[in-house]
Amino acid sequence: MSKETNNYKGRYSEPVPTSNLQNDENDFPEFEPFDEDATPRSFAPVGAALSVQHVDMCQQLNKPNHYTTAYDIQNLVVRRGQEFVVRVTFSRPLAEADDFQLEFLIGSNPSPSKGTLVAVTFGSRHGGPWSGQIVEAQGESVLLGITPTADAIVGKFRTYVAIVTSGGMQRTSRDANTDLYLLFNAWCPQDAVFLADEAARREYVMSDYGVIFQGTVSAMSQRNWMYGQFERGVLDACIYILDASRMPIYNRGNIIQLVRKGSAMINSQDDNGVLVGNWSDDYSMGMPPTSWTGSVKILLQYANTGVSICFAQCWVFAGVFNTFLRCLGIPSRVITNFNSAHDNTGNLKTDLIFKTDGTPDRRNTRDSIWNYHCWNEVFIVRPDLPAGLSGWQVVDATPQETSDGHFRCGPASVTAIKEGLLCHPFDSGFVFAEVNSDVVFHKRDRYGTLSPYRVDKTHVGQGIYTQAVGSPAPMDITHTYKYPEGSADDNRTMARAEEYGCERDHSELPDTQLTVTITVSLGHDVNLAVDFQNQTEHSTTVQAHLAGSVVFYTGVISKSFRDQNFTGPHKYSNTRMSERVMFRIPAQEYMPHLGSQLSLQFIVTGQADDQSVSAIKVIEMQTPSLTLMVSGQPQVQQEMIVTVSFTNPFNFPLQGVHLAMEGAGLVTHRTRYYSVIEPLSSISWKESFFPRLDGPRCIVAVLDSISLRQVTSSVLICIVHTGYC
Amino acid sequence: MSKETNNYKGRYSEPVPTSNLQNDENDFPEFEPFDEDATPRSFAPVGAALSVQHVDMCQQLNKPNHYTTAYDIQNLVVRRGQEFVVRVTFSRPLAEADDFQLEFLIGSNPSPSKGTLVAVTFGSRHGGPWSGQIVEAQGESVLLGITPTADAIVGKFRTYVAIVTSGGMQRTSRDANTDLYLLFNAWCPQDAVFLADEAARREYVMSDYGVIFQGTVSAMSQRNWMYGQFERGVLDACIYILDASRMPIYNRGNIIQLVRKGSAMINSQDDNGVLVGNWSDDYSMGMPPTSWTGSVKILLQYANTGVSICFAQCWVFAGVFNTFLRCLGIPSRVITNFNSAHDNTGNLKTDLIFKTDGTPDRRNTRDSIWNYHCWNEVFIVRPDLPAGLSGWQVVDATPQETSDGHFRCGPASVTAIKEGLLCHPFDSGFVFAEVNSDVVFHKRDRYGTLSPYRVDKTHVGQGIYTQAVGSPAPMDITHTYKYPEGSADDNRTMARAEEYGCERDHSELPDTQLTVTITVSLGHDVNLAVDFQNQTEHSTTVQAHLAGSVVFYTGVISKSFRDQNFTGPHKYSNTRMSERVMFRIPAQEYMPHLGSQLSLQFIVTGQADDQSVSAIKVIEMQTPSLTLMVSGQPQVQQEMIVTVSFTNPFNFPLQGVHLAMEGAGLVTHRTRYYSVIEPLSSISWKESFFPRLDGPRCIVAVLDSISLRQVTSSVLICIVHTGYC
Repeated sequence: MSKETNNYKGRYSEPVPTSNLQNDENDFPEFEPFDEDATPRSFAPVGAALSVQHVDMCQQLNKPNHYTTAYDIQNLVVRRGQEFVVRVTFSRPLAEADDFQLEFLIGSNPSPSKGTLVAVTFGSRHGGPWSGQIVEAQGESVLLGITPTADAIVGKFRTYVAIVTSGGMQRTSRDANTDLYLLFNAWCPQDAVFLADEAARREYVMSDYGVIFQGTVSAMSQRNWMYGQFERGVLDACIYILDASRMPIYNRGNIIQLVRKGSAMINSQDDNGVLVGNWSDDYSMGMPPTSWTGSVKILLQYANTGVSICFAQCWVFAGVFNTFLRCLGIPSRVITNFNSAHDNTGNLKTDLIFKTDGTPDRRNTRDSIWNYHCWNEVFIVRPDLPAGLSGWQVVDATPQETSDGHFRCGPASVTAIKEGLLCHPFDSGFVFAEVNSDVVFHKRDRYGTLSPYRVDKTHVGQGIYTQAVGSPAPMDITHTYKYPEGSADDNRTMARAEEYGCERDHSELPDTQLTVTITVSLGHDVNLAVDFQNQTEHSTTVQAHLAGSVVFYTGVISKSFRDQNFTGPHKYSNTRMSERVMFRIPAQEYMPHLGSQLSLQFIVTGQADDQSVSAIKVIEMQTPSLTLMVSGQPQVQQEMIVTVSFTNPFNFPLQGVHLAMEGAGLVTHRTRYYSVIEPLSSISWKESFFPRLDGPRCIVAVLDSISLRQVTSSVLICIVHTGYC
Repeated sequence: MSKETNNYKGRYSEPVPTSNLQNDENDFPEFEPFDEDATPRSFAPVGAALSVQHVDMCQQLNKPNHYTTAYDIQNLVVRRGQEFVVRVTFSRPLAEADDFQLEFLIGSNPSPSKGTLVAVTFGSRHGGPWSGQIVEAQGESVLLGITPTADAIVGKFRTYVAIVTSGGMQRTSRDANTDLYLLFNAWCPQDAVFLADEAARREYVMSDYGVIFQGTVSAMSQRNWMYGQFERGVLDACIYILDASRMPIYNRGNIIQLVRKGSAMINSQDDNGVLVGNWSDDYSMGMPPTSWTGSVKILLQYANTGVSICFAQCWVFAGVFNTFLRCLGIPSRVITNFNSAHDNTGNLKTDLIFKTDGTPDRRNTRDSIWNYHCWNEVFIVRPDLPAGLSGWQVVDATPQETSDGHFRCGPASVTAIKEGLLCHPFDSGFVFAEVNSDVVFHKRDRYGTLSPYRVDKTHVGQGIYTQAVGSPAPMDITHTYKYPEGSADDNRTMARAEEYGCERDHSELPDTQLTVTITVSLGHDVNLAVDFQNQTEHSTTVQAHLAGSVVFYTGVISKSFRDQNFTGPHKYSNTRMSERVMFRIPAQEYMPHLGSQLSLQFIVTGQADDQSVSAIKVIEMQTPSLTLMVSGQPQVQQEMIVTVSFTNPFNFPLQGVHLAMEGAGLVTHRTRYYSVIEPLSSISWKESFFPRLDGPRCIVAVLDSISLRQVTSSVLICIVHTGYC
């Protein structure tokens, strides 16, 4: 039953409007007579009839004031809750008795009671909720100031000027040049997205490029991402996403509903949204998630075709979602949570199963710990929650079957998560578990029964990071989600979480007096040091096992390359010193299995008498690098050249190599394909471009192929208008 | 990307299991050797090897104890948290050294860490979370008691007996006869659905027929509904619904997630669910919502075809949802809210727009007040919320675009709604607005500007009713949702609701000193009395307007038949007496427009000097009746006859008349079609049946045609087993 037919009949007096972009017709007849016959002709005009000659949306005046200069778009873009001006040129100067109003309409069937038809008056006559004033009158030309309310609907409005005549309303006809885009306004104290700090606004609303952290918490890597929210077509693509979601227009002033709908729409699950997730390592039917340079191409293609884009993994969902949010004016940032208990069922147990001999029981282990997971935070007020829970909120666009979210997640208050107040919407319990899950090690006996033998309360959620303001450095924000482990505050939070239904493991396990740790030093060969520490009263011998695997960043095993039993050191006694066993994993042992995965996972398990020990270590391999160089005059509209260079460091050829580059406000998305790059040989790729925007700008390049994924680099340049920086 | 391919690779170690019904293969090889070679042969059997001869699920013993006798199904049905017995006959009596366990599996890739593979042991050896005991051993036959945990997964399990031998596990092979269904248990204090009162359990879990209230709060009507949760195929259909929703099996013990998923799946929107909503009055492509006798046919057809069923309106969604809930063991009931502000956007304003002359401005009015709306309540614990919010929870399966719910709604705590604690999940604000919205009357001036002139705080949510326990009478439960209007508690609730983001109208309007009320007396002609009361200082004349329309039960206007200006009484003074104007609406004025709508809406608006008045009255027309008679011996498996009689009371023929009947546990769904029933002529339809269940039973019949909808009747009979009641 589509709404395009009249099936709304009997359910709604008019169909619920959900399309912002598809309204091209004239809303009004040119002249709309008043209904009542009995009205005396009290508004007979003085002199000649008034008419509108021209309507000027004053882009040069408005855009700087509204921080919307960077949008590469024909129409005016302004932010709500703040005055913008329109210059109307009439047929003659206004007289005392003249009466007119501006009308702003959005979507189909616009209505004053729903905020989709707003009449703005400029005299004593009462109009709609947006206020109006005459800023300046000079002859026939009048400069009008209009201030949309701080909770106005966000989207694309149509503008009309209506003149009151004695018999009815005389209006301008539909003119797409006077359409305007209204956004959220982080500069307006009454707006739900208000952010007081200017540097923070510059980063979280205005910055169109950034870095996303990956890897492991002890060896963090980063990749660039072009958010590109000001590039041509992106704003329309974001509104297209809302239209495709069928979100009623009159809800689009509500920040909570909008970000929630956005988190649902960025993934394709269940609503034909923007991106299709694929973790299978087979990307032959689309683009590998590692190969993207940014959001722009993805959003433009989705808006042009309506077909979901292949493929994404968590950083792609987060990067594209960040563009959507910032484009609409919402302060947002990308977060990386290291050791993330993703795909949890809302309880605090990530269960790893081991066999009786201590080796990993992969067939029966269902949970995994993601090396890292990326989501977004938005900075908004939460009027639907008790005081104190506003500020940063988690929203996650990566689809997951096992949360209630039904392929959307959040907004969940970060403060509520820290306080364990999981009784508030949305999906707080799920996010809480992602950062707080305990890792429970189970022994599975021959009969299939599980017995927990160790609980690691610190492995999950070891570090939560985002990019620092104004710099590509990582900023540790773990303390915003979690109190220090074991502190009284932390205990209170965990107790609350359990009260609110998050199950925890409470096995009474004997204290382990045997511990084992793994340290790794990287090179082509991997050197593993396994240290055993024995705090029991007697010397003992540990029967141990080393499992080495190549893992996806989700922690799921791609290929095991080492399953080795060994004996821990003999005859060590009750000391604080540890005894060490060394392993060397030569490159040729793991390299053939790396494929597109660059993480190695080592698990050591050991048994002595009644005691069991385990340790897990994940390392990320280093990738070769890409070189980016720029030459030319760094000035708007002056030609520049960018050169991407790369040398294949391996002793095997790289095949099917895709290179891509983009730079918001600088260079549009470009690609180059190399069918083969021979061992030790180099390539060099030049592109010319003409910068569009000034200020600090970034170009990102990514090299991606089946054997070598996501080699990325970036270069920063400062573009000036007139020759000085 | 379907999960049937290996796209889970890299994301999950195994695909997330979401299908309960599609598991027919053997889970195990007949003999599963132990892994370890080093295990000494310590369990050498004494005497001959032990094997299983027979497994008896003891249905005759278990079903009465678990209140599952009524299910018309081959396999055992039991409730969790309570012991059931299984009789295993071995090849010889058990010896001291013998070791065995029962294993219960559900879904694909079952796992002990997810509760989908549960091993039950019967001696000292530790097993899975369900407890086991040997109730009785008699030679080779052993009666085993198994007690699933009170939070076990709900659904269809497969049963195996595994004998420990020296080399491995010897198991029975897959036997569908030993499959069992595990349900929620309202009799178990540890179960989240525990309901202490036995009479309440009898009604809310066990009753398979009931009444649903419709009409208007001052003239309530009711229609029967056959829930039929015990009829053949219905339990499998409910599990089919969960499978179709792709709800992970291991979440199906969680009552909150399950009811939320159910509320999404009962409507077809966005997930290919059970029912398609249609309020358009054109039901040519399916069955009219008024024509159903109950849920059974709908559920069976959906489970058989996987195709959504056409068509439903709110009582159908609620009736089918009730069957789903009760079938799985969840205490639930159908609720009717009279004057429901459905399709709200979460604020407390239902805006009705009027023109300057006081006539309704239908073109600009977007909101409507439903004569009534039906949803469900479930009685569950809410561990995810602060204490005190457990008990009845609202769940609503009728799809609506304008809530965040994305076509599902709830569970929302009724207590939280009463207290205005809208900061808790799920969709509390939306339900709150449905029962508390203020009706704001706006005048729309010639320029399109709205000015509120009256706020009616009591019109919406005038009465919330459900069927009484053990009787078809209506029970007023309004007080569970709302404090008395204007009380201190009510004010506190409304203040909290506003704190939590529910916008209210706060126009400062002058007290109206003119009031108008409408009273109606029904007959074929409608007599309308309009009373004006003038409490001003001076006499005045009211310019008034009467609008009469046929409305859908959603309050949306189908057809206007009267738009009449009139003058209120002259020269009345400041008294408490009212002055009356009478109207007569002859039958021939409204009858041609009734169609399938049986509600008339009258709106009187008036103006005098500065004051405006309005009143709304909705009436439901009475329908002719159907007669049901039953004859024969009221005994299980004895033949009985039911006769449905009807006389066409109108002076026009009824065409395309569908009759249907069903009686849970009595008579399966039957239909009869009459192409025409002439004016004043009668029909008589006989069916024979053999009762399946004893106790108080009900047969429902419905007559439905384009010109006359939902003529319904029922008859109660008491069926006995052996000849006495």
